[in-house]
Amino acid sequence: MSITEIAAAARKAAIQLAAAKTEQKNEALMAIRKALLDNADAIIAANQVDLEQAEKDNLAGPLLKRLKFDQSKIDGVCEGIDSLLKLEDPVGQTLSATELDAGLELYKVTCPIGVIGVIFESRPDALVQISTLCLKSGNAVLLKGGSEAAQTNRILADVITKATAAVGIPDGWLGLLETRADVAGMLKLDDDIDLIIPRGSNEFVKYIMDNSNIPVLGHADGICHVYIDAEADIDMAVNISVDSKCQYVAVCNAEETLLVHEAIAGEFLPKAKAALDAKNCEIRGCEKTRVIIDVKPADDQDWKTEYLDYILSVKVVSDLNAAIEHINTYGSGHTDAIVTANKATAMTFMDLVDAGDVFWNCSTRFSDGFRYGLGAEVGISTNKIHARGPVGLEGLLIYKWRMIGTGQTVEPYAAGDKHFTHQKLDKDWIGG
Amino acid sequence: MSITEIAAAARKAAIQLAAAKTEQKNEALMAIRKALLDNADAIIAANQVDLEQAEKDNLAGPLLKRLKFDQSKIDGVCEGIDSLLKLEDPVGQTLSATELDAGLELYKVTCPIGVIGVIFESRPDALVQISTLCLKSGNAVLLKGGSEAAQTNRILADVITKATAAVGIPDGWLGLLETRADVAGMLKLDDDIDLIIPRGSNEFVKYIMDNSNIPVLGHADGICHVYIDAEADIDMAVNISVDSKCQYVAVCNAEETLLVHEAIAGEFLPKAKAALDAKNCEIRGCEKTRVIIDVKPADDQDWKTEYLDYILSVKVVSDLNAAIEHINTYGSGHTDAIVTANKATAMTFMDLVDAGDVFWNCSTRFSDGFRYGLGAEVGISTNKIHARGPVGLEGLLIYKWRMIGTGQTVEPYAAGDKHFTHQKLDKDWIGG
Repeated sequence: MSITEIAAAARKAAIQLAAAKTEQKNEALMAIRKALLDNADAIIAANQVDLEQAEKDNLAGPLLKRLKFDQSKIDGVCEGIDSLLKLEDPVGQTLSATELDAGLELYKVTCPIGVIGVIFESRPDALVQISTLCLKSGNAVLLKGGSEAAQTNRILADVITKATAAVGIPDGWLGLLETRADVAGMLKLDDDIDLIIPRGSNEFVKYIMDNSNIPVLGHADGICHVYIDAEADIDMAVNISVDSKCQYVAVCNAEETLLVHEAIAGEFLPKAKAALDAKNCEIRGCEKTRVIIDVKPADDQDWKTEYLDYILSVKVVSDLNAAIEHINTYGSGHTDAIVTANKATAMTFMDLVDAGDVFWNCSTRFSDGFRYGLGAEVGISTNKIHARGPVGLEGLLIYKWRMIGTGQTVEPYAAGDKHFTHQKLDKDWIGG
Repeated sequence: MSITEIAAAARKAAIQLAAAKTEQKNEALMAIRKALLDNADAIIAANQVDLEQAEKDNLAGPLLKRLKFDQSKIDGVCEGIDSLLKLEDPVGQTLSATELDAGLELYKVTCPIGVIGVIFESRPDALVQISTLCLKSGNAVLLKGGSEAAQTNRILADVITKATAAVGIPDGWLGLLETRADVAGMLKLDDDIDLIIPRGSNEFVKYIMDNSNIPVLGHADGICHVYIDAEADIDMAVNISVDSKCQYVAVCNAEETLLVHEAIAGEFLPKAKAALDAKNCEIRGCEKTRVIIDVKPADDQDWKTEYLDYILSVKVVSDLNAAIEHINTYGSGHTDAIVTANKATAMTFMDLVDAGDVFWNCSTRFSDGFRYGLGAEVGISTNKIHARGPVGLEGLLIYKWRMIGTGQTVEPYAAGDKHFTHQKLDKDWIGG
């Protein structure tokens, strides 16, 4: 099938899937779980083919590790399905109920978005996580994984679609895309795809955002800050700075710039430098920083750079407002943290920093769907509409306005013969 | 100021306005109300200049009526401000609270989107409604009204910004754009504008959507359907069909296509035709329709057309599924209604029709923010993310994840030494 046909089939399936009952969706999830375990040998064999090819292609060690899909990875995604099974069905929740007039009731009820296109990295477990999240939330999904994982992704998609078809989930709800040309084609299908979630390099995400009219949920940059206030506990400040930077440097929620109040810089910076040196982390500092510690100079470009590496830029600021101003100028609206013992200072920081995630006295690395307790995550959004920060099931939902009348026409209300009551109703949508 | 400077000032103001207290925002609303009444004479005089120019330019009668801004219109917008004052502050609401671990608490709290660009028609009352909605929701706003209303809009913007400055609302929160070049400039400012809400002709909205990377909330087409089921009450079906089509034809929530189950078409169509004839509404029918009533033929183009006029296309369908299929193929996801006495049929229709607003036994014309009881509306959205259908205050909000720790780092959780509790907390965000 062409990408156009796959997307049209997904649209058709999405309509039916939106109306699927909770029991049927959970039955499908259990069928997927069973099929993954039943087909474990074949899945692992297919993954072996990908791994051998990847070794021939001299793929780097960490990438090989992510590509590997063995029994323990299969057990891991099955645990994920177990937790998804326990979650309440997010579809069909009544967000509001209003009596407009006697016998005229309006309900705002959650529903799936429709067809979600997800482009993800080389981890095959992402295919299972994303497709099961979409299934639970009643969305059809088009998946494009890394080409390194082609054999593994193909068998996983096959196992999942066969398992769901057997319990009556409509064909076409999961479409697997395999080529770069498919991705380019997908970007043009705004009639059949409602949302694109790209995971990958910044350049790639920017390319998607610039080349499609379809809404994109995701983030290009993750330029996260930690601000050490004058009233910070020094040990806590060092720990949080180092963890935010070094716990895992290659990710979007890692700290890239450390901001330090000038009143505490003299005491804090030498201790921070010692701890960062121990992790072999390079420091690039502003002029005021370099008066206190011996580090390379930082320039304007450093404040704009997501290093994704053992490099940290450091700036000494005159006060809280200067820190907030720096973050709102150079930040990417992802995650920014303050370390301070002063509650009022923390509240001002959290009110005025314009980011999806604002933290007080903890590491930026907590900004993550699993750590937030959302179950799985489809991605992290720096968008300012729809969904922000780590996005789980909720970000895959929208709502319908459902109104039940008894023959009402607008004319008598427009003529002033009838009047709206607009009473809040304490009841849920009748369907389901 | 250039559009770039106006937008940058709005961004700066938005940061402060997001943190404004409820009392201050309400004080500002009261100040606007008072200033509008105090300056009524000057506002009406400015409007008189616009009206005289419009008469010279031979503006059509209905447009002149919309342009007019007299004492009763001023009283009307003041009533709107009164109702806005009574609404709870939508900002700072705790959507969820979770303990991640002892002393590590995560709150999802509503906040304004930031800077909203609104392009609206020639009604000057829209300027007051939109700006006060944005103020209450803590958003800065860039407004571009119809050029016919230039003098009226200028004095209204001036009166409003002076009134809000006097109570400490940051300068720049309301920017008035006056030229078409400003609109084109606005579309490029994705760093400083978070959302564009265009109200106007379909072509114009499509132009905006195609020419900006900024998210757009709105609708291009409003192709609404009424489906008369086999089990419909005939009188109700006729009333709803006529009201949906003729109560006000020039609007997006007016019916454009009537679908009729073949089992009831013979009885229903002659009565519907008589009622529509009485309103001088032209009917264009499919072949099956034309066997029953004598009307012009409809072709495929009719199913895709938003007439916004006294024209209705009619199609006889074989069953409910054919009706749903037609709507999902040709509809614009705006508002679609079913008339039936059968609840199960209605539920299936409302589950499977993919539209923002799905109605049972009432007119499509109810699809409106005022009628829904949302207070004012900034527009109607056919988007499938963020906000759908009539959009009031809620559509102008997003949320921030706010986390409070006591020095936690991620490393011990990653190493398995500490574990998340993920307990739901029954409390609200501490700030405010």
